[in-house]
Amino acid sequence: MPIALTKESDVDVLVIGAGPAGLMCAMALGHAGVNVRIIDQRPDTVKAGHADGIQPRIVEVFQSYGLADRLFKEAVQVHMAAFYNPSPNGGIERTDRAPDVTAPTARWAFEMALHQGGIEQIFLDSMATKGVKVERPIMPTYIELSQDEAKLKDPTSHPAKVVLKHLDVPEGKPDTEIVYAKFVIGCDGAHSWIRRQFGITMEGEQTEYIWGVLDLIPDTDFPDIRNRCAVHSHNGSCMIIPREGDLVRLYIQLADKDVVDSKGRIDKSKAGPGKIMEVANKSLYPYSISTSHEIDWWTLYIIGQRVANSYSVHERVLIAGDACHTHSPKAGQGMNASMNDTHNLAWKLAYVLRGWADISLLKTYEFERRKYAQDLIDFDKRFAALFSGKPRTEDNDNGVSHEEFLEAFQTFGLFTSGIGVHYQPSAIVNPKHQSFASNLIIGQRMLPHIFIRAADSRPVEIQDLLPSDTRYKVLVFTGDTTDKSQLQVVKALADEMDKPESFLKRFAHGNPDAVFNILSISSAKKMRSNYTDIPPLFRSHWSKFLLDDQDMYKRAGGGGYEAYGIDPRGAIVIVRPDGYIGMVAPLNGLQDISAYFSSFMVAS
Amino acid sequence: MPIALTKESDVDVLVIGAGPAGLMCAMALGHAGVNVRIIDQRPDTVKAGHADGIQPRIVEVFQSYGLADRLFKEAVQVHMAAFYNPSPNGGIERTDRAPDVTAPTARWAFEMALHQGGIEQIFLDSMATKGVKVERPIMPTYIELSQDEAKLKDPTSHPAKVVLKHLDVPEGKPDTEIVYAKFVIGCDGAHSWIRRQFGITMEGEQTEYIWGVLDLIPDTDFPDIRNRCAVHSHNGSCMIIPREGDLVRLYIQLADKDVVDSKGRIDKSKAGPGKIMEVANKSLYPYSISTSHEIDWWTLYIIGQRVANSYSVHERVLIAGDACHTHSPKAGQGMNASMNDTHNLAWKLAYVLRGWADISLLKTYEFERRKYAQDLIDFDKRFAALFSGKPRTEDNDNGVSHEEFLEAFQTFGLFTSGIGVHYQPSAIVNPKHQSFASNLIIGQRMLPHIFIRAADSRPVEIQDLLPSDTRYKVLVFTGDTTDKSQLQVVKALADEMDKPESFLKRFAHGNPDAVFNILSISSAKKMRSNYTDIPPLFRSHWSKFLLDDQDMYKRAGGGGYEAYGIDPRGAIVIVRPDGYIGMVAPLNGLQDISAYFSSFMVAS
Repeated sequence: MPIALTKESDVDVLVIGAGPAGLMCAMALGHAGVNVRIIDQRPDTVKAGHADGIQPRIVEVFQSYGLADRLFKEAVQVHMAAFYNPSPNGGIERTDRAPDVTAPTARWAFEMALHQGGIEQIFLDSMATKGVKVERPIMPTYIELSQDEAKLKDPTSHPAKVVLKHLDVPEGKPDTEIVYAKFVIGCDGAHSWIRRQFGITMEGEQTEYIWGVLDLIPDTDFPDIRNRCAVHSHNGSCMIIPREGDLVRLYIQLADKDVVDSKGRIDKSKAGPGKIMEVANKSLYPYSISTSHEIDWWTLYIIGQRVANSYSVHERVLIAGDACHTHSPKAGQGMNASMNDTHNLAWKLAYVLRGWADISLLKTYEFERRKYAQDLIDFDKRFAALFSGKPRTEDNDNGVSHEEFLEAFQTFGLFTSGIGVHYQPSAIVNPKHQSFASNLIIGQRMLPHIFIRAADSRPVEIQDLLPSDTRYKVLVFTGDTTDKSQLQVVKALADEMDKPESFLKRFAHGNPDAVFNILSISSAKKMRSNYTDIPPLFRSHWSKFLLDDQDMYKRAGGGGYEAYGIDPRGAIVIVRPDGYIGMVAPLNGLQDISAYFSSFMVAS
Repeated sequence: MPIALTKESDVDVLVIGAGPAGLMCAMALGHAGVNVRIIDQRPDTVKAGHADGIQPRIVEVFQSYGLADRLFKEAVQVHMAAFYNPSPNGGIERTDRAPDVTAPTARWAFEMALHQGGIEQIFLDSMATKGVKVERPIMPTYIELSQDEAKLKDPTSHPAKVVLKHLDVPEGKPDTEIVYAKFVIGCDGAHSWIRRQFGITMEGEQTEYIWGVLDLIPDTDFPDIRNRCAVHSHNGSCMIIPREGDLVRLYIQLADKDVVDSKGRIDKSKAGPGKIMEVANKSLYPYSISTSHEIDWWTLYIIGQRVANSYSVHERVLIAGDACHTHSPKAGQGMNASMNDTHNLAWKLAYVLRGWADISLLKTYEFERRKYAQDLIDFDKRFAALFSGKPRTEDNDNGVSHEEFLEAFQTFGLFTSGIGVHYQPSAIVNPKHQSFASNLIIGQRMLPHIFIRAADSRPVEIQDLLPSDTRYKVLVFTGDTTDKSQLQVVKALADEMDKPESFLKRFAHGNPDAVFNILSISSAKKMRSNYTDIPPLFRSHWSKFLLDDQDMYKRAGGGGYEAYGIDPRGAIVIVRPDGYIGMVAPLNGLQDISAYFSSFMVAS
């Protein structure tokens, strides 16, 4: 009999866990051409329930990968929020209605929702076009990271050894595999095995609020059933979130006695859908809710709000998503934060693996994403407390008033939408010349706006010209190129940028088009401008030269320089591959741009 | 040896010719569940060149079949038109720029272009989802239509006998097939075999203008190369139309002597791409144009503008597209008119075949589409003459001035866009109550507008709720349903509509939802309205009740009642399955609606 040899292999990136964080990671790396594997111990994908909230910023991110179309086809849109409070006549009554999201600069201002399996399928389909598939069911059983400093600093080394166990192998057959990885990304959820192997701890505490969650197709006379509702009643709080198709999700606050066992742990046998529906009907009285269909999905949970004390081990093993932060699901934050983690990480991994950037670039991942998770926890605590608290009434002065709740809802709108994410100064966020584009906040995502293409006057959303293709985008706001003296400035700039010492050449690794995508935006008007006037560097394709003007039919465009606060002398805006603004420079500031890139990139 | 028997079979509709008219027909019938076959004698699809203009109305029609997404992905958009005329310095100079299309109410105001093969592929892919495929190469060799009056009037009969020859059958093998069809649709082009079999003649004449057409990827310093250009020069006229990708189409006027043989017929051997490019460079001087790629496609043609004297033989054999009308290609009309022919015809065929409508409904096809073709020819003559004429200069007072040309360009904009198509009164166009919706012109297509859904405040384009699914759409403009007395009127209307004598029941053939789709639109405001307030008939699904109000983020919606000119007392608007307004009625006008349907539908 031959001896069953354990298979051994190398990989650049091993992603552990195929939830939203892991799939975003593998999808983005696959499209970047990175050698990546992704494993999951579940034998199959999620079919119903689980996370569902899709915030405005993540829709922009999906769009940057060409995936937003699917969301628009499959997800529900949530536009209105309604607030119910105790009525003097008993039961509840509507206190107010308001926009569901407060995010004035969002390209799509509303929230969406789709069950987690639907979101995962979008990633799976996109990855498949690059030959990346989830390998399952496979679980990691052992991980070891080299302690050799030189090896850890060398991006071509494989310092991580991971032993994998294939769970679907018949007994007696070899089921073990050894993988040597340059990087291991732990996206293995709230009970992360990777996190525990390296002794990373979660900081923060559980709360005492216990909730039942249930997806159903409702029969009801409740007039806001297709809106997001926050219901405070004397019989407990309840939240309603519309779902795709005719589904609706209910979050129902349960009393401890109903669901906790003698040791204080949730006992799912103590409260099922029947109990949740019974409490829901009490909260919603005088309205009633029932269903003539099967319950699509349900669960019970205690809100936990915690963040890992570290996101990385020597920048070689990194954790993302629920593995490093958990949130109250009701603000719809967890899945969004998870996907944004690996969206932030993927391009940095690609740069290091290609030898374009120093491995220290990866430090900015924890720096940027851990702070965000902590802010989210702080917000979550306040929101969850407000939401789970008793309503204020004449008998209960300490309760939560509608005004307090609405204020929190709106104040935090920018935050919950993901639009307000603001990365602090670092190697890749340099706020020095903010004043040259005063409304393009350095460290925030590039503001959407519609410009028209100079050559054909077609309106285009600038975000669509900034895809997540791992390239840095160099946006040259040229000023008015039909002004002859300004055109001379622009021509001189093009000459400078074309010189060997320019960042375009120094950090190009032999192929400027692979690293940089140059777009130019003039404040000239379409009726007078000829696209052929500006230097070829700023229109390497005719579609890359834009005008800040209305389209021919006056339906879109115009006012971009003002909206962005662009200095009339022009400005160069450097947008990171993930869509965040890395720096701004005046047209004579090429040296500062060089300094920006030399702070993390390897000169070629 | 067995004798090779000729195969015989029945079909409901046999479409002959798989160009844009035939494919639109087969696609629409396939989605309507009609038993349809489509044949073409060409062995393969068109790969480049040919027709390409896509006008605003046909984009709306594509959208109504769920096919516009593909256009937006694959076609070029043409937003700007530029006009060049002789310069006093010799050569040409730009006289003006203007919007390419004049169609203020168009949902998409611009023109698009995609090569004919690309458009055909959209239909082929859509048809395939219903199992309908083009059978090719097959040509008809014989057709006979029964003269039996009773048979001709009976929609269940198969009065047409067609003999088909399969062209790819090896010699000696049986290649003949006999098909008995209820209806035969001749979409077999300008030299239509079907048309000639029935002695239908084309009326109108050829013109003397000869044009060379050429698709190329240009190298040029001409600043409007990505815009549609009308160039009048002393060296001939030329038109430029941007195409998908980096292609551009040139229409170049040629001198007779260059391309005509001794009998006055075009001789393609006399002028190839080299000659066309030579003339183009003379017309465009001082600009120059060349290409470093292969020429994608080219042809020569004489403008022919003719219309058939009849579109039908006993409403059993009908012709559509180039088979019954030909136009100057330069206004981009031919393919659009062809597709709109069969879009107009398909639902009528489905109604007759299902036994819902009398066969006389098909008479409205010729009535509506032949008039449009004639109007198009009249326009075409004027436009082609203007375009092919010499420019006006100091030496030539009889030439065409830019002002004349621009006026024609804009005056006819509504017409060329397809948006202004206005079907005259007939069994299916009843203008009686026009005043109840003064801007929804009866006989024109339903105006696009954004409303919000009452249940969830999501903005929706009403055209998207009027798909080409063969259903009549009943739009109930209820007035303000938060006004109690108006709500009583609406409730009474719902009761009336639910009675056995209502048109909803009389013409429902046992399944009202298959024939009618009821939508309701209230002028109530979103912050006060409850979708649960209106009668269930007007919200058979929660998504079917709309409000005329802005969305929560003030980005869309509102002003619909005013834009449509809806009477404050409310109105019912009957939209035909092809998106054209069939009639309008006051809320107490159910009898008139019944009369409308009884004029062509069979009561069940």
